[in-house]
Amino acid sequence: MMTVPLDRSYADQLDAADDLAGMQQAFVNLEPDMIYLDGNSLGRLPRAAVDLADDLVRRQWGERLIRGWNEGWFDLPERIGAKIARLIGAAPDEVIVADSTSVNLFKLVVAALRAQRGRMRIISDDLNFPSDLYILQGVVDLLGSGHEIALAYSADGIHGPVETILSLLDHNTALLTLSHVTFKSGFLYDMKALTAAAHAVGALTIWDLSHSVGAVPIDLNGSGVDLAVGCCYKYLNGGPGAPAFLYIRRDLQERLINPISGWMGQRDLFNFDLDYAPTAGLRRFLTGTPPIMSLALIEPGVDLILAAGIERLRAKSIAQTEYLIELWQQRLAPLGYTLNSPRDPARRGSHVSLGHPAGLGIDLALINELNVLPDFRAPDNIRLGITPLYTSFRDIYIAVERLAQAVIEQRYLKYQSNRPTVT
Amino acid sequence: MMTVPLDRSYADQLDAADDLAGMQQAFVNLEPDMIYLDGNSLGRLPRAAVDLADDLVRRQWGERLIRGWNEGWFDLPERIGAKIARLIGAAPDEVIVADSTSVNLFKLVVAALRAQRGRMRIISDDLNFPSDLYILQGVVDLLGSGHEIALAYSADGIHGPVETILSLLDHNTALLTLSHVTFKSGFLYDMKALTAAAHAVGALTIWDLSHSVGAVPIDLNGSGVDLAVGCCYKYLNGGPGAPAFLYIRRDLQERLINPISGWMGQRDLFNFDLDYAPTAGLRRFLTGTPPIMSLALIEPGVDLILAAGIERLRAKSIAQTEYLIELWQQRLAPLGYTLNSPRDPARRGSHVSLGHPAGLGIDLALINELNVLPDFRAPDNIRLGITPLYTSFRDIYIAVERLAQAVIEQRYLKYQSNRPTVT
Repeated sequence: MMTVPLDRSYADQLDAADDLAGMQQAFVNLEPDMIYLDGNSLGRLPRAAVDLADDLVRRQWGERLIRGWNEGWFDLPERIGAKIARLIGAAPDEVIVADSTSVNLFKLVVAALRAQRGRMRIISDDLNFPSDLYILQGVVDLLGSGHEIALAYSADGIHGPVETILSLLDHNTALLTLSHVTFKSGFLYDMKALTAAAHAVGALTIWDLSHSVGAVPIDLNGSGVDLAVGCCYKYLNGGPGAPAFLYIRRDLQERLINPISGWMGQRDLFNFDLDYAPTAGLRRFLTGTPPIMSLALIEPGVDLILAAGIERLRAKSIAQTEYLIELWQQRLAPLGYTLNSPRDPARRGSHVSLGHPAGLGIDLALINELNVLPDFRAPDNIRLGITPLYTSFRDIYIAVERLAQAVIEQRYLKYQSNRPTVT
Repeated sequence: MMTVPLDRSYADQLDAADDLAGMQQAFVNLEPDMIYLDGNSLGRLPRAAVDLADDLVRRQWGERLIRGWNEGWFDLPERIGAKIARLIGAAPDEVIVADSTSVNLFKLVVAALRAQRGRMRIISDDLNFPSDLYILQGVVDLLGSGHEIALAYSADGIHGPVETILSLLDHNTALLTLSHVTFKSGFLYDMKALTAAAHAVGALTIWDLSHSVGAVPIDLNGSGVDLAVGCCYKYLNGGPGAPAFLYIRRDLQERLINPISGWMGQRDLFNFDLDYAPTAGLRRFLTGTPPIMSLALIEPGVDLILAAGIERLRAKSIAQTEYLIELWQQRLAPLGYTLNSPRDPARRGSHVSLGHPAGLGIDLALINELNVLPDFRAPDNIRLGITPLYTSFRDIYIAVERLAQAVIEQRYLKYQSNRPTVT
């Protein structure tokens, strides 16, 4: 590893050479001195979203009223889905925005298990979002058919247990479901290889793209992926709790049954037939009326990712996470910080987790005293989200300095009795 | 029936005597000449929601960023739920805002059927929202346990088939689920009597309050209701596609299992335990991260209903639907319009449906040429929503005049080949 200079002017040089630096201007930043490293939990507010919100409220709701449905609202799930499709290697009619990630995962897991009748094993890992595991557990309990969730455990809590997963795959496996990038360590799975291995035994795959969409290039079609879900409020900058998306490979769309069979997926929904008859294509995986304000506000953030280009974002993300890790090694490792993310950038998403025995106290000191906003994932992970659309090298440099300061000045001591909360 | 004078000055007199008339000022109205009679599909924009939306976007998302979760977002489902509880005769901890009406209904239907193991009949009627019937059909298909949906059919398409429902209730009945006010005809069920009849045979009840909440007084506790769902974008004025609410009577909350077991319902959700363990109380029926923009914007509309008082709103609603029906009888019945809503105000919600052989053409002429915005429900219903917070008697008078004009001038002819759409 190259040794990077430990001074701010070097960060400034990197920023000066960054051809994506101008994208920062596309976002609202009301606290320029605050270092925001939580774009992987909640992306910043695009400037275009401010104007759109104003139009949505005053004109679309306030003036157009019910006519808004025929003037664009009705098409939003497909229209924004088609844009997200461009980020994840899918066809425009293979992605739709609906509900939350958890509700979408529920729909796809149930549909996949019903399509795989007779196969009883579901494989996942202990690095997956607990929320995804909860959904799996709820489905197994609901179906009551004796499905088994086989969890592969990571040896080090950082790297995905690829070998264990491969060994668990068998002809009784209905489904393999994993986070493409794991939420704590940021491990990036080889989607294509694992999908091929699952297919080799006849299993279906569901990838959760929540921590990879908008951060790393994804090629669902090229990887032969069957099903996927993902979040719009992290790297896509869609706003707090923005609805999620789901992907179903085209040849599976008409074969799968949406268990939450709602009227938005009905054929001729304004006929008000008493019998459910799903419409053609992916709209059948819609359920109820979507929350238009939160749904429409997804689009400006997606547009910015498309404008920047996912390959350029990925290149900057790697440069920035590498820079951060190099600074960690020189400046933070001697202070007791461990690297809780993969060292190999090819196996790493766009966030870096640093461990420290005083992790939660450090996190709170950063937020409350040192004007840095990371997030914290128990037991000891300080998670630093790199969002190349608006993170600068200088942000990273300053964050590292303050991480050092929090330990050197023992700023964490007064927060030791706190419990983790949302951030 | 008293004969009301057929002139605008009488409507103006009624408005002058209306002590709720001032509430109109609490709403944005950018087209004062347009007669909006679709508040039962999408309520108008409260002025307070304009300011709130601005704060939500610029300050809460743009400035507070991830900190917003600890500064109020996390509590919104319960906080707004507690306000809605005051409108429906429930305790503050018995109502929570989440997902869509259809997703909430799915959760409650599955939970109810699992709690009623061994009972195989689900009773509903043909006046219920088709969307609710679709959810029931999906659940029955999913569980594959041989449940039967017994639909009671209305004799006239207007009045609920109460006697048939009573005759269907038996000791094999797991669940009775109905719309409290039916979406086409506006029939208002006697919730207390039917709930008691269901309980007499050991059945649970789920009431869909979408067309009654904010329009008619509801006493869930006083009626012994077990479960309920409802919509926030109709009479509650929560904005397009606003999340819905669900009610679970307190003594049932810990006995029921949420099949879509998401992390928002997890105990100690920031421990990231791998095993789902639902939290105490109603939050266990939450699933994924809620869409904050759409969720938070529900509150101003609910506040206005609370400020006006549901009893006063109901009194005005009855006066207005009675006025409309009296005008219909004098002015519209001779032109071929039928009354497709109950004549008895005690059995009627806050909208009135008028049938006409040229119904869809009339609806489109009203929207496109005559500056009246009702909605249309196949096959022939022109649905006129009375929303006493902002509907004036003059609005009703003018709407009736234009309904007459549409027929007298045969304005419907050019729209005869159209098909129904969203409005």
